[in-house]
Amino acid sequence: MFEKILVANRGEIAVRIIRACKELGIKTVAVYSTADEDALHMQLADEAVCIGPPKASDSYLNIHNILSAAVLTGAEAIHPGFGFLSENSLFAAMCEEVNITFIGPDKETIEQMGNKSNAREMMQKADVPVIPGSNSSITTIDDLHEHVQSIGLPVIIKAVAGGGGKGMRMVFDSEQLEASFLQAQSESKAAFNDNRMYVEKIITPAKHIEVQILADHHGNVIHLGERDCSLQRNHQKIVEEAPSFSLTDEARKNICMSAVRAAQGVGYKNAGTIEFLVDQNEQYYFMEMNTRIQVEHPITEMITQVDIVKEQIRIAAGLSLTVRQEDIEIKGHAIECRINAENPAFNFAPSPGEVTYLNMPSGGLGLRVDTAMFAGGMIPPHYDSMIAKIITHGQTREDAVRKMIRALDEMVVEGIQTNLDFQHDLLSHKAFESGEYTTETLSQQIIPDWLNEKEAENEAI
Amino acid sequence: MFEKILVANRGEIAVRIIRACKELGIKTVAVYSTADEDALHMQLADEAVCIGPPKASDSYLNIHNILSAAVLTGAEAIHPGFGFLSENSLFAAMCEEVNITFIGPDKETIEQMGNKSNAREMMQKADVPVIPGSNSSITTIDDLHEHVQSIGLPVIIKAVAGGGGKGMRMVFDSEQLEASFLQAQSESKAAFNDNRMYVEKIITPAKHIEVQILADHHGNVIHLGERDCSLQRNHQKIVEEAPSFSLTDEARKNICMSAVRAAQGVGYKNAGTIEFLVDQNEQYYFMEMNTRIQVEHPITEMITQVDIVKEQIRIAAGLSLTVRQEDIEIKGHAIECRINAENPAFNFAPSPGEVTYLNMPSGGLGLRVDTAMFAGGMIPPHYDSMIAKIITHGQTREDAVRKMIRALDEMVVEGIQTNLDFQHDLLSHKAFESGEYTTETLSQQIIPDWLNEKEAENEAI
Repeated sequence: MFEKILVANRGEIAVRIIRACKELGIKTVAVYSTADEDALHMQLADEAVCIGPPKASDSYLNIHNILSAAVLTGAEAIHPGFGFLSENSLFAAMCEEVNITFIGPDKETIEQMGNKSNAREMMQKADVPVIPGSNSSITTIDDLHEHVQSIGLPVIIKAVAGGGGKGMRMVFDSEQLEASFLQAQSESKAAFNDNRMYVEKIITPAKHIEVQILADHHGNVIHLGERDCSLQRNHQKIVEEAPSFSLTDEARKNICMSAVRAAQGVGYKNAGTIEFLVDQNEQYYFMEMNTRIQVEHPITEMITQVDIVKEQIRIAAGLSLTVRQEDIEIKGHAIECRINAENPAFNFAPSPGEVTYLNMPSGGLGLRVDTAMFAGGMIPPHYDSMIAKIITHGQTREDAVRKMIRALDEMVVEGIQTNLDFQHDLLSHKAFESGEYTTETLSQQIIPDWLNEKEAENEAI
Repeated sequence: MFEKILVANRGEIAVRIIRACKELGIKTVAVYSTADEDALHMQLADEAVCIGPPKASDSYLNIHNILSAAVLTGAEAIHPGFGFLSENSLFAAMCEEVNITFIGPDKETIEQMGNKSNAREMMQKADVPVIPGSNSSITTIDDLHEHVQSIGLPVIIKAVAGGGGKGMRMVFDSEQLEASFLQAQSESKAAFNDNRMYVEKIITPAKHIEVQILADHHGNVIHLGERDCSLQRNHQKIVEEAPSFSLTDEARKNICMSAVRAAQGVGYKNAGTIEFLVDQNEQYYFMEMNTRIQVEHPITEMITQVDIVKEQIRIAAGLSLTVRQEDIEIKGHAIECRINAENPAFNFAPSPGEVTYLNMPSGGLGLRVDTAMFAGGMIPPHYDSMIAKIITHGQTREDAVRKMIRALDEMVVEGIQTNLDFQHDLLSHKAFESGEYTTETLSQQIIPDWLNEKEAENEAI
């Protein structure tokens, strides 16, 4: 096992990883930008190294500075968390060069899965259903027309090198096809220096269902069940639940087995997530593979009692998984709400600043709070605006929801705006209560309904 | 199910019960003394009624005021928590008179189990092993000598009406027998207005092992496994763990089945705990039955995933248990540390006052914090000094211990003295690490070792 790990991230995921290391008896090195000089992750780690100014490209994305910190402190491994360098194959390669273990899959796998059209091809080979679309990348308008003709509208145009919604356009009308393509392509060129695009049929209405997998270096590949992450705004998840409430047992089994086949097919090692779209006939299609830990991993931990971050570290150290597929028993239901520093009434505008008072919910069976925030702490404007993940686990979905409502009622955040109130109302929206929401429900139903209600309330006052 | 419950308690257990009610969709009424005007339990409840001045006998033990509050607010049931009126059969009887459900066993059972020599007799009838001792109560020195002769020294003299260590004396030397008896008897007379005593053989060295049971009004009686609560100072538990680390599977099974027999034998309804002493040959002896929820119930909840407080409420409402014995699967290992406002270096003297800053540990899988404390909150001098219960759950005992050490490292309490540092050191003491501690280990080994170490540290400075 490693004696010292550097955590190349910030916020709650850095804290989550540091805590896992402490519990495994491993020393930790935090890295931080000058915007995070009082952040919890640097306070909790055994050592902390400043890696640059606030701008992420100068610090948390600064490969040179991070590797220097690792070498100087004698860290044997680096955990990248999510976001930042977590899916950067160059970073994984450079770790290898300086003889530091990257806690994640190898650089080839990251690259293969990061190239969306390549990933698609590999999934087809592994007998995993993919969304009808272009198998090769598209760079010209002629190519575009040829591909769109064969699959039909509506389509989504995506950047091969894409991520985070950049270089992405949906096209429902043939007249907008060319303009959308050129816009998406120029975005991709700017963000990723890559003009290769691909198109896919838009599957709608659909659920976003993803499967957590774990694979070690001894041939063991298992899944930890699925999560329903359909409640998204601009491709950002807001509430997740596990297991999915609406899938039939047969579909669940097929999707999970496809995920295992996908991981086996690409020779995957470490924790990963296979994301699928599932249509109303329970046909499912591979969307993408995330080659890292995910924000919403705690809900899977709650229903399986498997600590995914500890498994990641063990796998990277060459150890076997602590559990076999037959040991995994899905128990109860778990929900996660992401509490963000943002103002839902003003188009979810970020609300950075000092948290002057903070009361986190606690107590009772089945409540978990993952956060790096504390009273007097800062939400810097430079990074994502997540304050905390509130996770509840109950015998039934209803149990977990009631527990979440209770928890959100208790939570107090002062000094900044948050989406607490919005999250609270979302849990009582009929579309959430029925569990039959899709990837469109949040923006097309829940947010408009909430804004109307707020307006009515304000008028009443 | 009830629509409104009054919680006749304060501190973390009142908060724990209010949260369970919220999660069950039940309205709550808090009661509070003038010392608790800003306490969390009264802030979280739907309604709150002041029931008197700080002194417990004027407020939290004031049956008249509590029942008035219940009647006035239309509460259908009262949850007594632990301590205060929780094992007061008169209170249970008076609840019945005003047609309010007492959430606990009926008044007869409370009385029978509260009378320690009566409880002993009933256990013998139920074929549950009891400690050799007097089967009838003793009021005179002549009676005393007769009984002590038959069982032999060492013995413990206890008040029939006893509790909380009052009216209790250990006698190892025959010369001290009479004086100890008279002292204990006068204490009992003063505290309980009852001069009946009994004697028991002292089982030493021994472990304090207790079994959680649940029994509904439909004939279902189950156990939720055992807890090892041997780490005690003056009969106050400090650290508890579940399951017991040292019991053989056979002894565990026998003790748990004896507990179920005990509950069945007395026609028990609701949640209860049967406490046993277990000697080094795994002979076990009934000590007493607690007819209420216990401080340490969360560790049982963590290893069984059964919410004991919710089951209590369901049982009192006439519903069946949500689980059968065959559904109960003990998973992993759980530990609880009680964090108190006290100064271990000065004989654990209470340290009431304002908590000026508070950081509770959080995050990751298997950590739970049950507390009513918040930054700016008060620990009044009038009641017990518990600030929080930190509970961890791991796949193994080692996992749970590491997680606890990590959690205690993160916890910050400012403004008052606490036993955090002592608890932290206790977890690394060889007697704790080996798991082979007994009821004597804390006072005879761990505390003296800790004090010596502190002294050495101070000298070094």
